[in-house]
Amino acid sequence: MAKITSVSPLAPAEFPTLPIIDGVKFATAAAGVKYEGRTDVMLATLIPGTVVAGAFTRSATRSAPVLDCQAKLGQTSDAPAAILVNSGNSNAFTGKGGVASVEAITAAVAEVCGIPQSRVFTSSTGVIGEPLPHGRITAVLQALDDNTRSDGIAAAAKAIMTTDTFPKGAAATIEIDGKKVSISGIAKGSGMIAPDMATMLVYIFTDAKIGQDALQSLVSASNEKTFNCITVDSDTSTSDSLIVAATGASGVTVDDHSGFADALHGVMMNLAHQVVKDGEGATKFVEIIITGAASDADAKTHGMSIANSPLIKTAIAGEDPNWGRVVMAVGKSGAAADRDRLSIRFGEVEVAKDGWRSADYSEDAAASHMKGDNIVIGVDLGIGSGTATVWTCDLTHGYISINADYRS
Amino acid sequence: MAKITSVSPLAPAEFPTLPIIDGVKFATAAAGVKYEGRTDVMLATLIPGTVVAGAFTRSATRSAPVLDCQAKLGQTSDAPAAILVNSGNSNAFTGKGGVASVEAITAAVAEVCGIPQSRVFTSSTGVIGEPLPHGRITAVLQALDDNTRSDGIAAAAKAIMTTDTFPKGAAATIEIDGKKVSISGIAKGSGMIAPDMATMLVYIFTDAKIGQDALQSLVSASNEKTFNCITVDSDTSTSDSLIVAATGASGVTVDDHSGFADALHGVMMNLAHQVVKDGEGATKFVEIIITGAASDADAKTHGMSIANSPLIKTAIAGEDPNWGRVVMAVGKSGAAADRDRLSIRFGEVEVAKDGWRSADYSEDAAASHMKGDNIVIGVDLGIGSGTATVWTCDLTHGYISINADYRS
Repeated sequence: MAKITSVSPLAPAEFPTLPIIDGVKFATAAAGVKYEGRTDVMLATLIPGTVVAGAFTRSATRSAPVLDCQAKLGQTSDAPAAILVNSGNSNAFTGKGGVASVEAITAAVAEVCGIPQSRVFTSSTGVIGEPLPHGRITAVLQALDDNTRSDGIAAAAKAIMTTDTFPKGAAATIEIDGKKVSISGIAKGSGMIAPDMATMLVYIFTDAKIGQDALQSLVSASNEKTFNCITVDSDTSTSDSLIVAATGASGVTVDDHSGFADALHGVMMNLAHQVVKDGEGATKFVEIIITGAASDADAKTHGMSIANSPLIKTAIAGEDPNWGRVVMAVGKSGAAADRDRLSIRFGEVEVAKDGWRSADYSEDAAASHMKGDNIVIGVDLGIGSGTATVWTCDLTHGYISINADYRS
Repeated sequence: MAKITSVSPLAPAEFPTLPIIDGVKFATAAAGVKYEGRTDVMLATLIPGTVVAGAFTRSATRSAPVLDCQAKLGQTSDAPAAILVNSGNSNAFTGKGGVASVEAITAAVAEVCGIPQSRVFTSSTGVIGEPLPHGRITAVLQALDDNTRSDGIAAAAKAIMTTDTFPKGAAATIEIDGKKVSISGIAKGSGMIAPDMATMLVYIFTDAKIGQDALQSLVSASNEKTFNCITVDSDTSTSDSLIVAATGASGVTVDDHSGFADALHGVMMNLAHQVVKDGEGATKFVEIIITGAASDADAKTHGMSIANSPLIKTAIAGEDPNWGRVVMAVGKSGAAADRDRLSIRFGEVEVAKDGWRSADYSEDAAASHMKGDNIVIGVDLGIGSGTATVWTCDLTHGYISINADYRS
């Protein structure tokens, strides 16, 4: 695992203050799974009746903990629940041993915390293919359970980091019928980011009261527009997991409340953007807005083709308004396009219109936009009303250094 | 356009001696399309009755010269023919002006060389979106036509280079019924290489006598296993063109001759490999052999997913036998895979078998293989009999330098 000491230039100034969510407690420990001198396990305990929804990678080689979570998700229960996460080892491609590790950990959490094993969700993140030394994790469970606290979420955000250069948190609080409902979420992710269902690891907690189906459908819908619209390097993790837990402790029912849906969506979007801003080697945050496509699906295909193009990502790193490469990426995407109706803008600068360079194109103005930290590329296909927005970062020497110069 | 002075470490020791093909003559000129102090236009004239076949990019934003070639290909004619190629400007995404440039150039070639305009094929390669100053090309046509020579193919290979660090040539000579049949080909290509029909620019000449349909079907079949099986950076050019011209001057008919098919395939494979070996920033040539997939198509999907993965390409640059990333790329590809039947080898070293690290895996042996210039990654899916082999290069600081540090 790479040791990266410097923090992403796109990192927020500080970790946000996340509201305490009634019904959730956190604890962290340094179990020595792989790293030394830092926490690498986090436990979240959830009060009886907490509703859990989620989204996971669709990778055909997904990890044992992911498969276990998918099997358990969707049940309703009045029992308490727990989430246990370790960093340093992903327990992916570890065969029958990996399944045994999940069984050992979930059984131990169930016993120590007094929770049904079917309500214990685990995630593992880190190196692929190494046996998970799960005994190091079960050894610290009692200490974890003895030390859970309501205000432990910031420490939890740190314990789940791998190559991340900063911990990621986001929150929202809304008022419904005079009562407060809060949402607090954390995420990790930096490389191997091209989610195909969810992203790396994301845990969101709320005290809202909501049914399992209602929560799952909110999560799935927002996931498509947030975590499934980001990419760092086109590589999809074997461990991507998003879990949302609603404790109901606020007593406020939100099943059909659009304000809650918007607030949850905002927290998910915020965390997704933070993952991109911590993309390995990133120096620019890039928003790609596609309009006028034949369909929303086509728009996303074009957007992802642009966002994953090494030639575009290196041009952005070089602050070069190289719109010819955008034309190339639209052309190769496989989605419908008409070369002679294509328009492109960088920020507010129209660089190409109706299939050719704009008459009043100013390379200086476009180059000036490229010098900022936040790059916007707008592409209008001119053939329909499909839209999509996706986010990525640039491709720099930093990415090569992190992934080639250091040995795993 | 980047100015790269050093030659790829994977370049052949020298440009090969290519046999003269009866019926083809070459000339080159320095027209100053964009570059200074080098040749940038090549003309090949072909004797009456020459049969022409080809393959082109499927990009939705393909260039005006590509569209013109596609419209002209497939006709049979007893007239002479010509191929004119410029580097420095791709005449892609240039709207009506681009079409007018192709018309102006092909009309001028037709007049100067005494060839029907419908038999004049052109290609342009270089920057996208700039108007092609075609007057600079038509101005040198008479000089080109006055100076064509049978032994000019090596000079032609140089004139079509852009970011290439070495000219690319390959040849084969076979004997059929006591008579010699020769094939000589040249190619250019270095970045924006993920062919989706053909690759950058390739011109192959033979004195074989063959029908148009027979030649086209040989070219299309070999193309699928050669140029369509290489990738440098997953980005597909707007200008990819492969043209094969058979002059018939040997008098040897080869329509159903498997020896000729094999020889042509060998020349195409050789040129395709040279394009990868000149991949921007490349220090390793990588062969990815997929077996045991559900189908040949699935095998190629897995192979390309591995070949295009930035995490695998950077691991290879770092000489790191990081087989976990191979598991990841198989998982994300979308083609069928069963995690627990997957086996992986680096060179002759089996690193994973049946879904987990091999019992006798030696990291030292795998690391030793990674230190070579030629890396072989073998993946057996264990679920069928589909196979594919694809080729790529590593992803290094050199790629970032070429595409980010220099302005286009």
